[in-house]
Amino acid sequence: MRKIEHLGIAVKDIKKANETFAKLLGKSSYKQETVESEAVTTSFFEIGESKIELVQATAETSAIHKYLDKNREGIHHIAFDVADIYAEIERLKSEGFIFINDQPKQGADNKLVVFIHPKSANGLLVELCQERS
Amino acid sequence: MRKIEHLGIAVKDIKKANETFAKLLGKSSYKQETVESEAVTTSFFEIGESKIELVQATAETSAIHKYLDKNREGIHHIAFDVADIYAEIERLKSEGFIFINDQPKQGADNKLVVFIHPKSANGLLVELCQERS
Repeated sequence: MRKIEHLGIAVKDIKKANETFAKLLGKSSYKQETVESEAVTTSFFEIGESKIELVQATAETSAIHKYLDKNREGIHHIAFDVADIYAEIERLKSEGFIFINDQPKQGADNKLVVFIHPKSANGLLVELCQERS
Repeated sequence: MRKIEHLGIAVKDIKKANETFAKLLGKSSYKQETVESEAVTTSFFEIGESKIELVQATAETSAIHKYLDKNREGIHHIAFDVADIYAEIERLKSEGFIFINDQPKQGADNKLVVFIHPKSANGLLVELCQERS
């Protein structure tokens, strides 16, 4: 666990949210990226060593669509940068944390990602991510 | 806006949450602090240049108590470090953001703090904070 890599913010209208966050942070989004496998479109802002990732569903099958059916727009997940995602998974499993997916998968921003279930992390959806070489 | 200063996480049982976050982050809380004026007790963890602030209400009058009446435990606010809180308030007001309190007040961790209303920030409760000299 080296730093907060990004905060994932679930939004309904990414174009409008882009404008709001550009005003808030005083800078523009530096990248937009669609992740077909997750049925989401994303937009990234830099803030210090971390990022804000806006996430909008592109289909009803998306986890973000399901999330926004039940919740208001807001912080959907917190992602921590790790040096060795496999070692962190083992460490956290031995501490009793439950993972949503057992194997890391390809996420946005050229990362290997895995999610811890909110039930085992005080209600937070926690992502671990490792930069792909 | 220089960095994510901290994420405020609303918890019901700070002792239990402390244990969970110590396991998750692989390190202990480095500070506990009660803020009488806000009727909260807090616990801080370092993560890179940012902090995780666990917040538990100490009275029913606390905003955190009211929050947890309506919401699940989770990320309650995001705080950005600013160099000049008065200048940032002016800049953001001119961009149309609405503030909950008009004047910065004393927060935890020796900071001057002010909050933007979630209505004007895509559902996020945003805190600006400036280190007191």
